[in-house]
Amino acid sequence: MNENVPHLQTSLSGPLHELEFKFLANQGKIESWFRKQFKHTPAPFYASVDLRNAGYKLAPVDTNLFPAGFNNLHLDLKPLAVQAAQSAVTQACPIADGVLIIPESHTRNTFYLESLFRLQEIVTLAGYEVQIASLSPKITKETNIELPSGETLTLKPLQRKDNRVGVDNFFPCAILLNNDLSSGRPEILENIEQVLLPPLELGWVSRYKTHHFTHYHKLAEEFAEIIDIDPWLISPLSRQCGPINYKERTGLDNLSETVQEVLDTTKKYYETHNISCKPFVIVKSDSGTYGMAIVSVNTAEDILNLNNKQRKKMSSAKEGLVAEKMIVQEGVYTHENWEDAVAEPVIYMIHNQVVGGFYRVHTGKTATDNLNSPGMHFEPLSFEISASNPDKTKACDAPPNRFYAFGVVARLALLAAAREIADANLINNLGDQI
Amino acid sequence: MNENVPHLQTSLSGPLHELEFKFLANQGKIESWFRKQFKHTPAPFYASVDLRNAGYKLAPVDTNLFPAGFNNLHLDLKPLAVQAAQSAVTQACPIADGVLIIPESHTRNTFYLESLFRLQEIVTLAGYEVQIASLSPKITKETNIELPSGETLTLKPLQRKDNRVGVDNFFPCAILLNNDLSSGRPEILENIEQVLLPPLELGWVSRYKTHHFTHYHKLAEEFAEIIDIDPWLISPLSRQCGPINYKERTGLDNLSETVQEVLDTTKKYYETHNISCKPFVIVKSDSGTYGMAIVSVNTAEDILNLNNKQRKKMSSAKEGLVAEKMIVQEGVYTHENWEDAVAEPVIYMIHNQVVGGFYRVHTGKTATDNLNSPGMHFEPLSFEISASNPDKTKACDAPPNRFYAFGVVARLALLAAAREIADANLINNLGDQI
Repeated sequence: MNENVPHLQTSLSGPLHELEFKFLANQGKIESWFRKQFKHTPAPFYASVDLRNAGYKLAPVDTNLFPAGFNNLHLDLKPLAVQAAQSAVTQACPIADGVLIIPESHTRNTFYLESLFRLQEIVTLAGYEVQIASLSPKITKETNIELPSGETLTLKPLQRKDNRVGVDNFFPCAILLNNDLSSGRPEILENIEQVLLPPLELGWVSRYKTHHFTHYHKLAEEFAEIIDIDPWLISPLSRQCGPINYKERTGLDNLSETVQEVLDTTKKYYETHNISCKPFVIVKSDSGTYGMAIVSVNTAEDILNLNNKQRKKMSSAKEGLVAEKMIVQEGVYTHENWEDAVAEPVIYMIHNQVVGGFYRVHTGKTATDNLNSPGMHFEPLSFEISASNPDKTKACDAPPNRFYAFGVVARLALLAAAREIADANLINNLGDQI
Repeated sequence: MNENVPHLQTSLSGPLHELEFKFLANQGKIESWFRKQFKHTPAPFYASVDLRNAGYKLAPVDTNLFPAGFNNLHLDLKPLAVQAAQSAVTQACPIADGVLIIPESHTRNTFYLESLFRLQEIVTLAGYEVQIASLSPKITKETNIELPSGETLTLKPLQRKDNRVGVDNFFPCAILLNNDLSSGRPEILENIEQVLLPPLELGWVSRYKTHHFTHYHKLAEEFAEIIDIDPWLISPLSRQCGPINYKERTGLDNLSETVQEVLDTTKKYYETHNISCKPFVIVKSDSGTYGMAIVSVNTAEDILNLNNKQRKKMSSAKEGLVAEKMIVQEGVYTHENWEDAVAEPVIYMIHNQVVGGFYRVHTGKTATDNLNSPGMHFEPLSFEISASNPDKTKACDAPPNRFYAFGVVARLALLAAAREIADANLINNLGDQI
């Protein structure tokens, strides 16, 4: 992909490429800082991070602790994922010889199943026996699914024996969740003695985006000081707001005021940095969704004038999860384009390593739209080159350097997720002591 | 390189491909075993291993703890090396932010200097400050060397302050030796408090190949039992012999008898495994060399009939190191060919990971010659694909599976080196206690 990458299209005069330059010039400091951070707060098993690249600003907008889309990663980078998976399993469970994966229950989404196959393959190649155990009541016996790629995926029904879960005679110490638990904490996974990656508390039913971004903002400030940048350049303004009930129209005034405050603050930053764009704001459910309860607005009034369809959308999330608390987040423009379509990077990490990524390339969408909308078609454009290969002899926005920048910001989000997990473990341990 | 790899050319009916098949079928068991072994005995920072692939037999013949040739590795695999280098430095010195490399002193060998540049780059990309400090008396100040690749290498004179070595104000906790210490243990490196990788005891002046192969044979037996093969299939017969003085012709009878014994034993194994090749034997200095004191013989008499030139060669090794003890090793045929030339795999490892490799392709040499002779020209043929990517849907000798097999045998040799280092550390610690 060396030359075959999206182009940054912006007519802005602001601090374009300042970020890449700062990242490149401080690579040693940055890696040293990450090492210390991940030593103190171990990285999650895996994560994917959606980024927005406006050129002058590069920020995460969503951190997924149950990533799918492994089938979109370039095959050339698979060995990196394999090597990182060894470290991730070893960190969680040094004596493990096997890993049980608990996937999403929707067995008809072949894109998801291809991703699941790839995930199984990565952990298998890392040298572990891997079985996939479904929570779905439809999986009552060993089920083989033929995939479009020609591969076969085998699902088995999850069983519990005393305080362990598994399949057949396979009850390994490491259980990898690839199910975001939108429909709640499954009873069968409560109080198991195995290591659950990530812990149940990080399922969307109990996780708030606000919690993640609070950690992220703190980290962005620490990090920005080290490389001497304005933390705003890597961090979207975020406010929690609610409860909101769109059907009954309660809380909307408060939401509208918050939107106005974020628009005003964004405007000030744009002025400071000499950016001639119009601020916009993303309002989304503070709990996890598949991108349903999400709306992009330009004015505070837009919130009060949502039409029926929009309000219905905002009040329903995946598997009936009710959206009550909202997060109001500064919109970050997408200024990367691929053949006239908007291109947004998604970065994949296993353990504390970037193991690949791809661009979501959407035709028919604009720079301010949310590109992870349900049902939206996108073309994945895989990164062929690694994010750990910056090249100081090249321009600071050359692909290896741009991907390095993506990897830095994505790892900041990963570290924020690591702190979320540390919080959850702390609460768990306190619970055990009481 | 997928289809573009050397072909195995042999008309033998023996257990061809049995090894690849066994490795492939037992991948999970193998990786699990390696994990336990390297947990118990940490891997060296790095190593390269020369293999011989006879098809029916795959064995290491040389394990280098101060590898050069990093410039022969394929650039696509560099991220693997970077990731592994992070683990290697972290294991040796968790708080390190810098690494000092001490290279060979011959500053005119541009192949070596290109390798040194690549090594520096790998550790830099892993997120460490790296400086290169020379032991050479010719390097009295900062010296920039322009390389054929267009890169610039900077050497500085090594300094000692109290119990630390470094350059300028750079005295990091990790010191990486890329100098095999053939000319002895440098005074300046004695009793330093920094972590020296690998320890001085592993320099060729005090290291014996026999020690390495004794560990290797033990490991091969353990490993062979796990995957149910004859350990001979991955292990060359080896005997120590000496002292020998070629000039004064003392010890030659004894050497000749040992050669006969190894030839006889090899013949029995050939019969057992239905191999219709003629046994041969490699006699080489038991201490390290650059491949000078080495000879290939077909009969015990050959030893008694060495001509003047051969005897002179056998009695002189690199930088005046005298070859006294010899190792008599079963010769392993090279049955891989590339465009009518013999091709021998060299595998590179950092930490406990295979990070690449290449074939030494020699024209004008035969299957029984030693291909690492001084002054010999070879073409490196880099592996483009990783050794951690076996594919059970492909033939067991397809490139990903053949490379996996190379990686398994190379890691066995790496583990033997790890045990050598553990022995050396044990002796050091005992010394400290006395």
